[in-house]
Amino acid sequence: MISVSNVIGFECVECARRFGAGGLVYTCAQCGGNLDVLYDYDLVARQLTRERLSEDQRFTIWRYRPLLPIEESSIVPPLTVGWTPVYDCPQLATEFGIRQLLVKDEGRNPTGSFKDRPSALAVVRAQEAGASVITTASSGNAGSALAGMCASMGMRSVIFVPASAPPAKIVQLQIYGSRVVLVDGSYDEAFDLCVEAARRFNWYQRSTGINPFMTEGKKTAALEIAEQLDWDVPDRVFVAMGDGCIIGGLWKGFKDFHRLNLIDRLPQMTGVQAEGAAAIVDAAMGDGTVREIAAQTFADSINVGRPRDATKAVRAIHESKGAGIKVTDEEIISAIVRLARSTGVFAEPAAAAAFAGFVKMAGSGAIKSSERVLLVLTGNGLKDVAAAQRAVTPPLRIRPSIDELDEAIRRDSEWRM
Amino acid sequence: MISVSNVIGFECVECARRFGAGGLVYTCAQCGGNLDVLYDYDLVARQLTRERLSEDQRFTIWRYRPLLPIEESSIVPPLTVGWTPVYDCPQLATEFGIRQLLVKDEGRNPTGSFKDRPSALAVVRAQEAGASVITTASSGNAGSALAGMCASMGMRSVIFVPASAPPAKIVQLQIYGSRVVLVDGSYDEAFDLCVEAARRFNWYQRSTGINPFMTEGKKTAALEIAEQLDWDVPDRVFVAMGDGCIIGGLWKGFKDFHRLNLIDRLPQMTGVQAEGAAAIVDAAMGDGTVREIAAQTFADSINVGRPRDATKAVRAIHESKGAGIKVTDEEIISAIVRLARSTGVFAEPAAAAAFAGFVKMAGSGAIKSSERVLLVLTGNGLKDVAAAQRAVTPPLRIRPSIDELDEAIRRDSEWRM
Repeated sequence: MISVSNVIGFECVECARRFGAGGLVYTCAQCGGNLDVLYDYDLVARQLTRERLSEDQRFTIWRYRPLLPIEESSIVPPLTVGWTPVYDCPQLATEFGIRQLLVKDEGRNPTGSFKDRPSALAVVRAQEAGASVITTASSGNAGSALAGMCASMGMRSVIFVPASAPPAKIVQLQIYGSRVVLVDGSYDEAFDLCVEAARRFNWYQRSTGINPFMTEGKKTAALEIAEQLDWDVPDRVFVAMGDGCIIGGLWKGFKDFHRLNLIDRLPQMTGVQAEGAAAIVDAAMGDGTVREIAAQTFADSINVGRPRDATKAVRAIHESKGAGIKVTDEEIISAIVRLARSTGVFAEPAAAAAFAGFVKMAGSGAIKSSERVLLVLTGNGLKDVAAAQRAVTPPLRIRPSIDELDEAIRRDSEWRM
Repeated sequence: MISVSNVIGFECVECARRFGAGGLVYTCAQCGGNLDVLYDYDLVARQLTRERLSEDQRFTIWRYRPLLPIEESSIVPPLTVGWTPVYDCPQLATEFGIRQLLVKDEGRNPTGSFKDRPSALAVVRAQEAGASVITTASSGNAGSALAGMCASMGMRSVIFVPASAPPAKIVQLQIYGSRVVLVDGSYDEAFDLCVEAARRFNWYQRSTGINPFMTEGKKTAALEIAEQLDWDVPDRVFVAMGDGCIIGGLWKGFKDFHRLNLIDRLPQMTGVQAEGAAAIVDAAMGDGTVREIAAQTFADSINVGRPRDATKAVRAIHESKGAGIKVTDEEIISAIVRLARSTGVFAEPAAAAAFAGFVKMAGSGAIKSSERVLLVLTGNGLKDVAAAQRAVTPPLRIRPSIDELDEAIRRDSEWRM
């Protein structure tokens, strides 16, 4: 039995049917659509003010507890999630001719990705539901985030990942003690298997889209952006899209704060996908209908053919008058390097895709010189070293001899410093 | 020309000769020994109080600026370094029969290791010295930290690493745009080559031991520990030792705060090394003399045969009435897993060595039940995925079929959940 003070129910994003807050809720009982969580905003407004926040010394997602779907008495994981840094990049802003360029480094979360936000919420919800095992399908990051959160709480998890996931992401799951199921197939197939398994074995289901609370965890990044920028939100936010849940979550966060009058305007949401896995972009920029494709990009976190939260993603783009952008794998590789060298942030491919999308859109002249732009960098570059290696050439290798070094430097004009 | 308000000079750790604060300073002009940085503590005491710190909203190493050797006007790197989380682990404390077990997760720093602290300081010092290129020898982490800091500041770096460094650490350097020199030899050989090259090419030298300011960067972790624990320092601090600079730095930090009356006692420093690379432990627990060895451990960050800051390390252990502990590579591998599963922190081998040392010492009965222990976990597990893979067995791999999953679960008793 669930009774969360400020949550008053759910609304289906497909058929708009509403449901009360009781019971274990996943998708719409009528049409199977994903759900939005509804709050009593009057109640929230009394608990969450700029003044209270300015005094709050909890620099984690839990500072936004009145806007989160958990019980007052629930224990949260000890790992410190959220309040990741936002960096101002004036040189890049000048290079691209815009007013301000900001990056938010989500790779600084405990397991190295944005997914620590929803996964932290998932373990709390699972405990509230009295579940003993949590499961998720994952291209890698959601799984390691859930595995880490479960380890820190002494809970058990079963993670379904495509066998092609990067070694770092798989080993993280195992080190944390999760039961790992490598699926010989795509992320989409791993997802379907996870859904079936959760039903058969009665596991708590964390998977993106099906679990309505993951949007709520993801929205915390938007709440932070507003607060970290002193309530003056950027004009445009770029983020990569796989299942579409992150962009949907960010948009929900901005809308929540707008409804609470904590911010007075909303950013335009720009979702970036790889050309080989662009189902959401095609829908958002086309007729709005999402069509399943055979996904193909090296950016594993967004290698999704059947995005499970596409409706929320398309809506975020449409409602915010944003856009969808496609980038090539080569553009993503270049973005990893350019981003690291100009900001000091080493991002995984999907994270760097946000920068690649910005580069492309700025190049097309679609961003005005008066705009302030923020990129959400969703994962740490250390998550996928093999991908980063594609962006560089083998380094100089010599014996420990100053003469060999001297000679090598003379030979190579790049060494003239 | 350098003039730093609160720094009054340097003292050689070998011959105790003192030097003034002017000029570009590395090692003792008389005997070549490493230097300690001396402060005007009366001046510092007026600028750094508990009250001022409690109001300081800079949650980075720069909140301790009066105790750092940089000019007031100097610009610091934008990447947010330090103020890493300290986690209380009550279940582990109970398992080991001690009052409290705390871990400080240094893997949460911008490039994933403790070395972001000294490297952030190095780029500031290099800018103050008007240097255009910074160099360091590194087993990996110091290099990637310096590379990241340089990238964020638009500065150039040359990094010397042994060719055996883990791929993740090497690719990080390259992504950040450093000039990388892979040396076919040991860390010790890479170190000597870096020293020679810096002299020949007039590069600013960051390498551990030679650069006296690295201790000052490293001490910030101790300052944070004191403040994060509300000025009640732990009884014992465990940390791995390679060159010995981290333990020396932590000890300097605790001593600085003690001298400023911000804490009223000092912890016992316990340095942990791998059995195959235990020059400092052998010296500290023996006659105090450091003897070079041929280092051999898979924990690359502490695979050091000729520790460059051994005098400071041995002194930290002796002055604090601490200890040196040796652990096997197998014990380190076990520690990675146990630590991750009980705390949610995935640590690299050298970091997990601190936990392995604690396990060994606790097992020997040398830690009293009344003690509060803190482990400094110096690097992120994502830095060395191959090492972590040694700790786990290949996961279950199946086709996307619920029947295959069902059968696999029935076969394996570990899946009974």
